[in-house]
Amino acid sequence: MKQSMTFIPTLRETPADAEIKSHQLLLRAGFMKQNTSGIYSFLPLGKRVLAKVEQIIREEMENAGVVEMFMPALQQAELWQESGRWYTYGSELMRMKDRHGREFALGATHEEVITSLLRDDVKSYKKLPLSLYQIQTKYRDEARPRFGLLRGREFIMKDAYSFHASKESLDETYDRIFQAYSNIFERCGLNYRAVIADSGAMGGKDTHEFMVLSEVGEDTIAYSDTSSYAANIEMAPVVTQYEMSSEEQLSIEKIATPGQKTIEEVRQYLSVDSTRVIKSLLFKVDDEFVLVLARGDHEINDIKVKNVLGASVVEMADPNEVKEIMKCSIGSIGPVNTNVKVIADHAVKYIVNGIAGANEEDVHYKNVNIDRDAKVERYEDLRFILEGDPSPDGKGVIKFAKGIEVGHVFKLGTRYSEAMNATVLDENGKAKHMIMGCYGIGVSRTLAAVAEQYNDESGLLWPENLAPYQVHIVPVNMKNDEQKKLGEDLYNQLKDQGLEVLLDDRIERAGVKFNDSDLIGIPVRVTVGKQASEGIVECKDRRTGESKDVSIEELSSYINQLL
Amino acid sequence: MKQSMTFIPTLRETPADAEIKSHQLLLRAGFMKQNTSGIYSFLPLGKRVLAKVEQIIREEMENAGVVEMFMPALQQAELWQESGRWYTYGSELMRMKDRHGREFALGATHEEVITSLLRDDVKSYKKLPLSLYQIQTKYRDEARPRFGLLRGREFIMKDAYSFHASKESLDETYDRIFQAYSNIFERCGLNYRAVIADSGAMGGKDTHEFMVLSEVGEDTIAYSDTSSYAANIEMAPVVTQYEMSSEEQLSIEKIATPGQKTIEEVRQYLSVDSTRVIKSLLFKVDDEFVLVLARGDHEINDIKVKNVLGASVVEMADPNEVKEIMKCSIGSIGPVNTNVKVIADHAVKYIVNGIAGANEEDVHYKNVNIDRDAKVERYEDLRFILEGDPSPDGKGVIKFAKGIEVGHVFKLGTRYSEAMNATVLDENGKAKHMIMGCYGIGVSRTLAAVAEQYNDESGLLWPENLAPYQVHIVPVNMKNDEQKKLGEDLYNQLKDQGLEVLLDDRIERAGVKFNDSDLIGIPVRVTVGKQASEGIVECKDRRTGESKDVSIEELSSYINQLL
Repeated sequence: MKQSMTFIPTLRETPADAEIKSHQLLLRAGFMKQNTSGIYSFLPLGKRVLAKVEQIIREEMENAGVVEMFMPALQQAELWQESGRWYTYGSELMRMKDRHGREFALGATHEEVITSLLRDDVKSYKKLPLSLYQIQTKYRDEARPRFGLLRGREFIMKDAYSFHASKESLDETYDRIFQAYSNIFERCGLNYRAVIADSGAMGGKDTHEFMVLSEVGEDTIAYSDTSSYAANIEMAPVVTQYEMSSEEQLSIEKIATPGQKTIEEVRQYLSVDSTRVIKSLLFKVDDEFVLVLARGDHEINDIKVKNVLGASVVEMADPNEVKEIMKCSIGSIGPVNTNVKVIADHAVKYIVNGIAGANEEDVHYKNVNIDRDAKVERYEDLRFILEGDPSPDGKGVIKFAKGIEVGHVFKLGTRYSEAMNATVLDENGKAKHMIMGCYGIGVSRTLAAVAEQYNDESGLLWPENLAPYQVHIVPVNMKNDEQKKLGEDLYNQLKDQGLEVLLDDRIERAGVKFNDSDLIGIPVRVTVGKQASEGIVECKDRRTGESKDVSIEELSSYINQLL
Repeated sequence: MKQSMTFIPTLRETPADAEIKSHQLLLRAGFMKQNTSGIYSFLPLGKRVLAKVEQIIREEMENAGVVEMFMPALQQAELWQESGRWYTYGSELMRMKDRHGREFALGATHEEVITSLLRDDVKSYKKLPLSLYQIQTKYRDEARPRFGLLRGREFIMKDAYSFHASKESLDETYDRIFQAYSNIFERCGLNYRAVIADSGAMGGKDTHEFMVLSEVGEDTIAYSDTSSYAANIEMAPVVTQYEMSSEEQLSIEKIATPGQKTIEEVRQYLSVDSTRVIKSLLFKVDDEFVLVLARGDHEINDIKVKNVLGASVVEMADPNEVKEIMKCSIGSIGPVNTNVKVIADHAVKYIVNGIAGANEEDVHYKNVNIDRDAKVERYEDLRFILEGDPSPDGKGVIKFAKGIEVGHVFKLGTRYSEAMNATVLDENGKAKHMIMGCYGIGVSRTLAAVAEQYNDESGLLWPENLAPYQVHIVPVNMKNDEQKKLGEDLYNQLKDQGLEVLLDDRIERAGVKFNDSDLIGIPVRVTVGKQASEGIVECKDRRTGESKDVSIEELSSYINQLL
């Protein structure tokens, strides 16, 4: 492609509202342009990278036996009402009415649509399993769109759905697509981890997120420093073994703590370590109130509370509820002398002579020994894992990293087939709900994640198989006939050899051309300058920055060596 | 692809609301499925054909120097307000609000978006011309969606936009894209015509529609029986030369025509030929009233009236207005004794002793000779062309055909760049509005047009380069190990040779399999039946219906011969 014929509006300045590297550079290098908050156009360079990501996805999906189709974005409200998501999705779901006043959603995902398509035509277990995917535009009305393509309102997703007559069949497809996803992110050159994620009621091993490691990620990953174990921090079980101290248990006694509300305040006031404080939080668990305890230096994980209690909804009690139930304010509640159900994290059992709220305003207990002084119904793993905790797989210790979620594989089970009554007859002629899986990749987000991982101070550094072009030919001075002619000859010659080539045929200053070239980040730059008359060009590896003068006879083999 | 792994829900019955062949067959053969009125999912077979149409479009666009990009469907209302289309597009434009109450349109086309993208960054004539395209989902809330993909509410379009500093540059790009469109529809195997279309104020030669000839088309094309001339019937100029009859001009006289209102009633009542009747219609032309005359057997074309008078809006006067201006009802108005401005089609000049309304209830004049008895301001070409009229290019006579519009090329001029203030500096440093062209192809509609042209009583008949697969292998009995094994061996073998192969590995009755195969319409069917043990299969050309027994050694070369 000749640069004069395409549209690459590079920017000198970093746009004010672009906070992270990928957002800044994709804008500055002319890969995309914002239309309005959270909505972008892919300009020619961006579209080329997008097409390459899509092609990799298509190849790996086909290999995994998943078949492409294409569903509409405009989805009648009735389907979402059947699944119930019309009522629960909230304002993230974009909604509209047609000319007849009929309600529609702009598809955020397609579980409803695909379930409705299949339930009419797939009536026997013999037609299963079936795995289908599409690459399609999705809509989510994010409250605060940010980070460019990472959190937009209109974006491109690959979404796949599988349908099964048995759990074993789902497991098999899940594993195959898991492998396909690993291949995809590998081929995109991403430093990623497949991370165990929260699947709500489905159990911990039935969903994985594919996270690209990045400081700007919005999720925290807990991973082992020696094994491949990785989990979303919300999901990582704590397997730490605590030891009982040999310290003598003293008598419990009340102690005034005027105005001391937080763990940190109480700890400092009483000059004790936070590991000696019993943190008490009151939760509302499906309309029952439960007091949850943890050690003062630990954070309670409400997803674990929810899973342990098999609850549907877990939320913190509000100050009024605390007052009503515990007869004092939040900073003074505790497990001693209460009728409320108490559960505790394992670590609490090992606190000797601890501090806890006395359920009396501005009063705490000291020398609390939990099994002696309170009634704990269950000890469970209820806290967030910490760096330094042993890895749950028994290998190494936990470290934290930030991640950008680019993919998600999920065993849906019968969540949608039950709500929408999608059944097949089994071997015995009995109707059974189809078992489903769903599998998403953020296509435009993957592009941004690559940009986030591959850049330097001068611009983008595309990995070869995603680069918009492989070679960038830059004649320094297009008004010089020799340079112009050699540039065009090399352009035609390398294109004929099957390379994707961008020719900077613009009449611009050399500095502008070089800056733009570095910004765009095509792997190999061929500079046609003063030595054109001698048949010598400069060949630069964008990644390493290494340059070498190469004769035009050797150019093609030298480029192949670099790529 | 193995049929057991993909989703092809064929139907025995024709869906009740599918009126035309393409709609019926694409549904029955499992290429697509309706989600709701005017909105469809492309199932795996449909998606494959769609991808092939898109690939052809991409290749031809690239060859024509048009560069791909991808713009959003969700477009902020402000852009449409700038162009004015927010107010004029009516209820066909789908509209919605986001969570903050900001208004959006779902893109029906992208003139506004692309103009807004370019105006910020393209500031000099040196950066022009620029031609960009996308393949993208479009939305139009049709009042009466019908004919499946031919008139839907969510559909796929290729839309291109070009930007120029001069009219000559626009002409050049227009011609190049015109040629690309011809190549595209040629490669899709369509019987089409490029037809001169109405371009409103831009003049008659600045827009063409690409029409696929089809009885179910909603447009009428006037074409020459000997040359390549073709125009939308609304646009074809009439070049018929009339001759003055030698009949003697008699004295004009009034004649009672009680209750005779229409041309046909008056003609019969007075026992004259309709060619002797002067048809008079009152139009409101930008707030002025104009009486337009034509011969009784001709239809007045209001687009010609509008163009001839250089008007913005032309509409028929309503009965009340007729009464007020002409002092009688519509059936009795005429050009004699009126102060209203009169224009006439050329043919009217040659009516000798004609009949016309007398502007008096239930009275006509007979022996009207227009130049003697009335004041006609201008004689112009004001009527629709008819079959049998000479072709406007002087070659042959006109015939009519029905067409499906699959493409449109249009010189927009400065319609959008003026409204949205998109300017470049010219050679003299003076700001000038960019001159634009736009170029659309209905991608999903093209698929339907191909299905409409390629079918027979048993199903679809895909041309090779659009067929979802090239070869359909049908083992008659998958429970027979020999047939099963040979089917699978041939499947792998032909795939390895680069052919796209569908294997019907379903355990179904032979009749079901053959019916489905005919319905789907893959060009070559290989039936693996009883002669499998002897290494003989049956090879059928779906188009001609010819079958031949072929040894498996010869199969591959025989297939290549058929394709």
